[in-house]
Amino acid sequence: MGKVNTHGAYLSRQLERLGLGLLREVTVGDDAGEMRRVFAEAWRRSDIVISTGGLGPTFDDITRDVWAKVLRRPLRFHPHVFQRIEAGFRARGLRMPEENRRQAFVLAGARVLQNGNGTAPGQVLRVNGKILALFPGPGRELWPMVEGQFLPFLARAVRPAPRRTRVYRIFGVPESVVDERLRPLIHSEDARKDAARTWGILAEKGIVDIKITVSASGRARADAALRRIHRKILREFSDEIYGFDEEKLEGVVGRLLRRNKDTLAVSESCTGGLLAEKITRVPGSSGYFLEGYVTYSNESKRRILGVRRRTLQVHGAVSEACALEMAKGCRRRSRADWALAVTGIAGPGGGTTEKPVGRVYFALSGPSGADCRWKQFHGARDQIRENAALFALNWLRQELNRQRAKKP
Amino acid sequence: MGKVNTHGAYLSRQLERLGLGLLREVTVGDDAGEMRRVFAEAWRRSDIVISTGGLGPTFDDITRDVWAKVLRRPLRFHPHVFQRIEAGFRARGLRMPEENRRQAFVLAGARVLQNGNGTAPGQVLRVNGKILALFPGPGRELWPMVEGQFLPFLARAVRPAPRRTRVYRIFGVPESVVDERLRPLIHSEDARKDAARTWGILAEKGIVDIKITVSASGRARADAALRRIHRKILREFSDEIYGFDEEKLEGVVGRLLRRNKDTLAVSESCTGGLLAEKITRVPGSSGYFLEGYVTYSNESKRRILGVRRRTLQVHGAVSEACALEMAKGCRRRSRADWALAVTGIAGPGGGTTEKPVGRVYFALSGPSGADCRWKQFHGARDQIRENAALFALNWLRQELNRQRAKKP
Repeated sequence: MGKVNTHGAYLSRQLERLGLGLLREVTVGDDAGEMRRVFAEAWRRSDIVISTGGLGPTFDDITRDVWAKVLRRPLRFHPHVFQRIEAGFRARGLRMPEENRRQAFVLAGARVLQNGNGTAPGQVLRVNGKILALFPGPGRELWPMVEGQFLPFLARAVRPAPRRTRVYRIFGVPESVVDERLRPLIHSEDARKDAARTWGILAEKGIVDIKITVSASGRARADAALRRIHRKILREFSDEIYGFDEEKLEGVVGRLLRRNKDTLAVSESCTGGLLAEKITRVPGSSGYFLEGYVTYSNESKRRILGVRRRTLQVHGAVSEACALEMAKGCRRRSRADWALAVTGIAGPGGGTTEKPVGRVYFALSGPSGADCRWKQFHGARDQIRENAALFALNWLRQELNRQRAKKP
Repeated sequence: MGKVNTHGAYLSRQLERLGLGLLREVTVGDDAGEMRRVFAEAWRRSDIVISTGGLGPTFDDITRDVWAKVLRRPLRFHPHVFQRIEAGFRARGLRMPEENRRQAFVLAGARVLQNGNGTAPGQVLRVNGKILALFPGPGRELWPMVEGQFLPFLARAVRPAPRRTRVYRIFGVPESVVDERLRPLIHSEDARKDAARTWGILAEKGIVDIKITVSASGRARADAALRRIHRKILREFSDEIYGFDEEKLEGVVGRLLRRNKDTLAVSESCTGGLLAEKITRVPGSSGYFLEGYVTYSNESKRRILGVRRRTLQVHGAVSEACALEMAKGCRRRSRADWALAVTGIAGPGGGTTEKPVGRVYFALSGPSGADCRWKQFHGARDQIRENAALFALNWLRQELNRQRAKKP
């Protein structure tokens, strides 16, 4: 249990697409006895059991063996699986360690799911109207197997009811304020009896998500119910919503830059590269992102971005004046259409009464001039950095939206 | 269950310090009925139950109410808690939403744990020799409460047995190879009957952890058993181990730079700022990190780092020659003692037969010259970027170790 478990959230989202709710998620350590008890209870209680992890080659990977005991079902050696594993090692110029042989054992009667990104295959077993699926632990191995092989299989096995889900993603509004503003919409919709609705608000890393699920007796009815709520939420939150479902702020900004045929450069101090890193997470970001400067020292702010010595002396590196000169210098040097600058105090040290830890100055230089803003963030170093990078991206997003709106 | 659950791993590590094993972790959605069943089972089965999340102000935060039903115990309004919440809002210049009033309700008989980073207090209840603890969901609120208030309380309530745990962190060796080389050490130690040992290997994001736990009848015996294994593991893996326990590669590199009084600058293409971002995650990194260049476009590689036009034409931006010129240009411009350069193909597009997706070139320029290396990584864009950043840091770490070893 030393690893963080991200699969519950992932599987919950995937199963939702078939209208299946994930009722319970249990994480258990590498203790054979406890695993056995947990597996047996899950199998007794549920129609579908998904088991992830513990299919690796090492001695503490005992998931296969424990399930075999719980179901009283032998493991069978699959020569084809074995050959695939061996071939994978050969293709990388490696000798296969003897340990990996264990991964070619499959529960009797189970179908094998190919693993495109690793050695352990997945397994799906149907017994007495129940379904058991075993997946390897690493996400990059599990995700394609779930989406490419397991969900299509499940969709045939269960008949999903018409159901629509939508997530509205908001940055810069506190969770409790979102709740307060959402509540009247909830009540007005709940009064209608045409569909069943569930609502949730989820706050994580500065982003607040509103999640709406609607299910009704027919597809048209479900669509209509979702459309109606959709309009109300858009009216209430409008530009505060930066995107939907799985959208990331950096992806939305990228889309807008691409549409406007604009380019971007960034200069960062306290975020230390996080802003550039977020922007370049997006495949194809080289189409609009030119360059980033992590000017961590005062000397580098002067030399690289042309911040004036006097500005640093009079106002300090953490100031509106410095942010503005950073953004202008960054735009001038890179010849990008847009340049963002971030400078602040991420902590834990370096705060003063006047400029406490969490104080961050931003500047944005664009085709029609430069502007600056500041924010006081709270929390630990990584949260301040994360929120500062998101704030900068969100500001640029709003500005790009306005620019686009202005164009004839 | 839309959120990723990181608390299981965290609490497991914390409880281990008291010799308490986390037997089971259950994640449950915002369904009152299922929550009630899960809470009741956990309470029946366990001596200590820790419940996280669902103490927020919004309508779907029902943890308090469900526990009150399960334990048949009323919730009491605590005026002091209420005043603290209100004061927190006032200090931020905000009006308290009516919803937050709910957070001032505490299970009858429970002691209140102060929340320094949020509104919901923690609660600890002792009933019939059992302990129930409720914590708010956000990590920044939960961590200080667990470490500052709950663990000291628990340490008095349970009597921990002498137990030692150590984690060895390795980069650049596949999990199955670590396993193969560790196994003989395990067997030779297990033959001794002086202590109980558990071993585990955990691979995540390119890092392989070996985790050793030793418990014995006395402190001296546990210490001696851990020391003996420690020596064997160090002998086997030596420089492949970059750190221990919670250490991060960027933290180790920072420590070495600080000790050598050296400075660092980086230039990145495919990692897009991730390398600089990792380095600056470390508080106080401004003491040795001067600047970073995210030269994403060819033009910026030329203009900022002085990569020659001819190099880009003949070898391309993804080449040893380009990496070398990037590192040298970066060192020259920044006047840092060490300069790292990373250029590669993170994908999903841009690969060729000769240089497939995942091909990354590295260069390191230091006091005694410049060198370059390349690696072929596998997996998705974010994994390739993550592994490339770690590889660069690990190379620098080994080089800094060697430099230090050379000094008289």
